Amino acid sequence: MERTEINQFGEFKLIDHLTEKFVLHHENTLLGVGDDAAVLIGGDQNILISTDLMVEGIHFDLMYFPLKHLGYKAVISNLSDICAMNGIAEQITVSIAMSNRFSVEALEELYAGIQTACNLYKVDLIGGDTSSSQKGLIISVTAIGRQKPNKITYRSGARPGDFLVVTGELGGAYLGLQLLEREKQIYLSDPNIKPQLEDHKYMVERFLKPEARRDIISLLERIGLVPTAMIDLSDGLSSDLMHICRKSGVGAVIEDQLLPIQNEAKQLALEFHMDPGICALNGGEDYELLMCVDPQDYDKIRYLPGFSYIGEILPAESGIKLRTSSGKEHPLQAQGWTHF
Amino acid sequence: MERTEINQFGEFKLIDHLTEKFVLHHENTLLGVGDDAAVLIGGDQNILISTDLMVEGIHFDLMYFPLKHLGYKAVISNLSDICAMNGIAEQITVSIAMSNRFSVEALEELYAGIQTACNLYKVDLIGGDTSSSQKGLIISVTAIGRQKPNKITYRSGARPGDFLVVTGELGGAYLGLQLLEREKQIYLSDPNIKPQLEDHKYMVERFLKPEARRDIISLLERIGLVPTAMIDLSDGLSSDLMHICRKSGVGAVIEDQLLPIQNEAKQLALEFHMDPGICALNGGEDYELLMCVDPQDYDKIRYLPGFSYIGEILPAESGIKLRTSSGKEHPLQAQGWTHF
Repeated sequence: MERTEINQFGEFKLIDHLTEKFVLHHENTLLGVGDDAAVLIGGDQNILISTDLMVEGIHFDLMYFPLKHLGYKAVISNLSDICAMNGIAEQITVSIAMSNRFSVEALEELYAGIQTACNLYKVDLIGGDTSSSQKGLIISVTAIGRQKPNKITYRSGARPGDFLVVTGELGGAYLGLQLLEREKQIYLSDPNIKPQLEDHKYMVERFLKPEARRDIISLLERIGLVPTAMIDLSDGLSSDLMHICRKSGVGAVIEDQLLPIQNEAKQLALEFHMDPGICALNGGEDYELLMCVDPQDYDKIRYLPGFSYIGEILPAESGIKLRTSSGKEHPLQAQGWTHF
Repeated sequence: MERTEINQFGEFKLIDHLTEKFVLHHENTLLGVGDDAAVLIGGDQNILISTDLMVEGIHFDLMYFPLKHLGYKAVISNLSDICAMNGIAEQITVSIAMSNRFSVEALEELYAGIQTACNLYKVDLIGGDTSSSQKGLIISVTAIGRQKPNKITYRSGARPGDFLVVTGELGGAYLGLQLLEREKQIYLSDPNIKPQLEDHKYMVERFLKPEARRDIISLLERIGLVPTAMIDLSDGLSSDLMHICRKSGVGAVIEDQLLPIQNEAKQLALEFHMDPGICALNGGEDYELLMCVDPQDYDKIRYLPGFSYIGEILPAESGIKLRTSSGKEHPLQAQGWTHF
């Protein structure tokens, strides 16, 4: 018997490989696997469906991840997928498997975080399942959202000449994680040393309590802008841009010096002997939005705070590259987080 | 700090406890937690959403559960939930977490089973997530179905006087599991002894390869019958009937001698020194449908094969009871499977 290890594939290729033989049967299914969310016919608006799994020891470490924050983040990461389709999430289901090391009080904390996210984002918890696990905590969330058919943004809509625009700031969540990991190691070596996180609240919060950019979706609606393509930054800018380029059959260039990085994040990166630009390109879980904008539409957001022009979509043959301040171009590497 | 163990609650009370403080925000959400599926507005038809988690070592044992069957069953149990609402499932999402003991070839087997179910039931795989796990295999499936608003069957619709009708035969899956467990123990004590399952193919298949009764949903549509309430038998007849009684605010009586049990299943029960009736009442995972039928509608199914009248809905004050062939009545015990 042949044996191929799962890590030979990587997450995305594995899903492609496992699902490539599946066919679609229903005319109500407009889009299946392959974008941030699936798209179904559902009356005046289409239905968007997205699902994510979070596994203890793989996606989170309970040594520094408070259960309430974890519940919040598990919801946010799914709401963010609906945002990536330019939709508004309305419902979620949450399924939990946990070992008997968790008490009812621990679960109450987790659900308090889920509820906080539901109330803040006006999302209804409509179902789920709970079960024991042999080890650790596993959270599976499915989000259901809606948007009018002509306003849904796909990964496949980018065209050469489109401007690449990103919301908010990048790399903060990744640096927050590095910080928590460092303090964890210090604590493990000497439990009497108190973790030093006060100075870096912004980054720790970016990692432990991210937000979905639903405010941006509402803003795009108000100003009448529909991006040609959009994705949320969960794996990292490089990796997520490559999803857009692959699905749209285009190339792209990113201007290194235009990447929006908070000053505090830049300094912490240097403290860790890391290139801030690399943190912004490859750090995941910022849950900002990367959108492709028709240049004719660009004036609608040019002077708005919180949007950064970072590059341009190119024809496929130009490849996907990073242009440094000296004008040199390098092929972009996807080094997003992999969970295998 | 107080510590309450999860098994003090049980699965259903735990979900109730954790979700009781959640409120619904959207008028598109017609029904949230508390039935076989949630109900959303979705154009001419409503949208039904159901989700289930299957955890290795809790819900299945890979020593006797072939991966292909497991993939099939994980889909079926969700399609069955949509059937329980009198709906037709159209899409599923499947998320998988597995340890590195699983190879790509093992996952291909699992997905082959998922695909077989998708093709047979004309259901589209529209999304999912894959991840590592620290231990074992976890499968999370969400099913999406549709039905016209006036044809959806809720657990809450039963009225005193309704007839209790069950499809197919009961207890087979539970006895199939007992058989597989027995042969596993024999095999563990002496790996040279071959498992004896050939004589009991029916029951082993009921457990390893159940079907969702979508044929019944189509039949109900053809004959113009909408049950007043319906549930699928996943936890066991007693436990599932109690869900209906609780949600409808009614009681019920089941006639012991009318429970449909296959002859082979009866004999195997006796071989295991079990009461066949108890197997039918408390054995889960048959995925048959328990429906409440207005007596005026009963003629529509009275002479059809595969439907068994097993009792009647009573006023709440009558309680939920089992009537034996001697005419004695006992309060019904819910001893459905619990996964804690």
